[in-house]
Amino acid sequence: MFSGGHHDDCRPARPRPRLLTGDRPTAPLHIGHYVGSLRTRVALQREYETFVLIADVQALTDNFEHPRKVRDNVLEVMLDYLAVGLDPAHVSFVLQSQVPELAELTMYFLNLVTVSHLRQNPTVKTEIAQKGYGEAVPAGFFVYPVSQAADITAFGATLVPVGDDQLPMIEQTHEIVRRFGHLYTPVLTEPQALVGRVPRLPGLDGRAKMSKSLGNAIFLSDSDDEVKRKVMSMYTDPAHRRAADPGTVEGNPVFAYLDAFDPDTARVQALKEHYSQGGLGDMTVKRHLVHVLEAVLAPIRERRADYAADPDGVRTTLRAGTRRGREVAAQTMHTVREAMSLTML
Amino acid sequence: MFSGGHHDDCRPARPRPRLLTGDRPTAPLHIGHYVGSLRTRVALQREYETFVLIADVQALTDNFEHPRKVRDNVLEVMLDYLAVGLDPAHVSFVLQSQVPELAELTMYFLNLVTVSHLRQNPTVKTEIAQKGYGEAVPAGFFVYPVSQAADITAFGATLVPVGDDQLPMIEQTHEIVRRFGHLYTPVLTEPQALVGRVPRLPGLDGRAKMSKSLGNAIFLSDSDDEVKRKVMSMYTDPAHRRAADPGTVEGNPVFAYLDAFDPDTARVQALKEHYSQGGLGDMTVKRHLVHVLEAVLAPIRERRADYAADPDGVRTTLRAGTRRGREVAAQTMHTVREAMSLTML
Repeated sequence: MFSGGHHDDCRPARPRPRLLTGDRPTAPLHIGHYVGSLRTRVALQREYETFVLIADVQALTDNFEHPRKVRDNVLEVMLDYLAVGLDPAHVSFVLQSQVPELAELTMYFLNLVTVSHLRQNPTVKTEIAQKGYGEAVPAGFFVYPVSQAADITAFGATLVPVGDDQLPMIEQTHEIVRRFGHLYTPVLTEPQALVGRVPRLPGLDGRAKMSKSLGNAIFLSDSDDEVKRKVMSMYTDPAHRRAADPGTVEGNPVFAYLDAFDPDTARVQALKEHYSQGGLGDMTVKRHLVHVLEAVLAPIRERRADYAADPDGVRTTLRAGTRRGREVAAQTMHTVREAMSLTML
Repeated sequence: MFSGGHHDDCRPARPRPRLLTGDRPTAPLHIGHYVGSLRTRVALQREYETFVLIADVQALTDNFEHPRKVRDNVLEVMLDYLAVGLDPAHVSFVLQSQVPELAELTMYFLNLVTVSHLRQNPTVKTEIAQKGYGEAVPAGFFVYPVSQAADITAFGATLVPVGDDQLPMIEQTHEIVRRFGHLYTPVLTEPQALVGRVPRLPGLDGRAKMSKSLGNAIFLSDSDDEVKRKVMSMYTDPAHRRAADPGTVEGNPVFAYLDAFDPDTARVQALKEHYSQGGLGDMTVKRHLVHVLEAVLAPIRERRADYAADPDGVRTTLRAGTRRGREVAAQTMHTVREAMSLTML
């Protein structure tokens, strides 16, 4: 079922520490993901044995009515990963639903957390409010921090890159790992959070969050025409009517994108000053942004097309990664069952 | 790992409907279990393909601090099953923790139930109050009705013998199966509850429930001396001081046990009348009860000793049953994953 060898060829003799990241496959990835996490993953992939979890099971906790959407985006997300330079020689891409050990570990972890404690999780609290669930929150969504703790510990991750809004998830994992160690045997690894230093990229409309559902995202899979069209229609300073007027840089997503993508920081600084003083038109800055983005996105788009032309190769990569992930998760579950006296008679 | 053949030899060509029952392995089984469910299982085992789940995972939801207790009682419960006449030719004894598909199915079912709905489950509500959990209820315990629904549907059970206090669990299973069918594909079986006609056997102390933790149980593994001692010290009518006094039959556990175990109902009726009129001493009735119980328990005790002398044979039986259970649960999970578009890329 799985093609072998893939990983072992490149793994150094001494095991590297493990890093876990991942995404819910509900939409293709966008430049916000690139800035916020994909770049970091690429930078760290040689240093850590990296597991990238395509979290289809977790995606279903608030998309259980749309299983096809989740399914269809698994390939999209895989193409995005490969296109940005995540390298199967260093990275195991793991499809969550194909690692039942994660569900198993979640069940045992659920005993170590109370309902009232889950209710107080700040991230989940905010999300429940945003989604308007109230008390009608699906139990699967309600317990997903426990499921995340299982993901992290099943792969023995020592490092988990997260946004600062995800810190409560790592804290929850710590609590569970400690409780487990106290009740049974301290066999699980306490992960460290690596909080990204890059602030979240705003949407094209200036809103704080870029997402497909808000219709304000530039996807890694967008064509050059789409990128151009999206940038040219971006929200800027609404008071900046004519080029001659002084404009506001603060809260202006065009400059936020330049900060994130233009490697020439001195040039960005000069553009900001010019814009603030007046005399620099939005169209001029946007055209510059299109160039800057294209410098990053064109090679990604090209690699993405290459991988898209070889779906069997992508499948093989996902299968090999999932097999490696399952191997590690099965080892952890073996240890967990021993620690909990849950062995066959 | 598993010895084969066991089941296939005896399975009729046409698949029988499936029956699921089980117990939490937290203590050896007692005569209350015998009257309430074990007898029924033995009576039905030829008619149904029977799965008897040793629910160690569920036992941990409120015994997670005592994994050794759960572990140690797996063998005890197996011996009880075999001793009462559950026949491995007809019955698959399944150790829950060794069937990870049950955890997997639970995770997907959790999406189909809301937290507020779980909060309203009458059985869990009562148990949470009894245990004094309040809001500090462990999440694993809180969601165990969903886990039970997964057990029932994973084995494709059409019939589930239950006490009437367990009916909300079957109702919860119906709701989940219907929701699943509505959202995805109607591939899961809606089980029917078989409500036992025998009322619950009271404890030796006259309390409504017999249990190890209350110290008011006669175990199937008790020696004849223990049975005698326990019966002779049973609670009866406290107003019945002397044999000559009229006694009360209602709420008198001695007569409840005779009702449950003495096959000679006319004799029981005569004893009740004599006791009510006066002239029948407690010791006389109790001595009779000891004889009646021994007629049932002596052959069980003997078979139990035979099986206990062959732990390898018992292990083989549990492994074969668990293998069969896993086979069926894996088929169900395959169907479930297909229905939910959760297949490998």
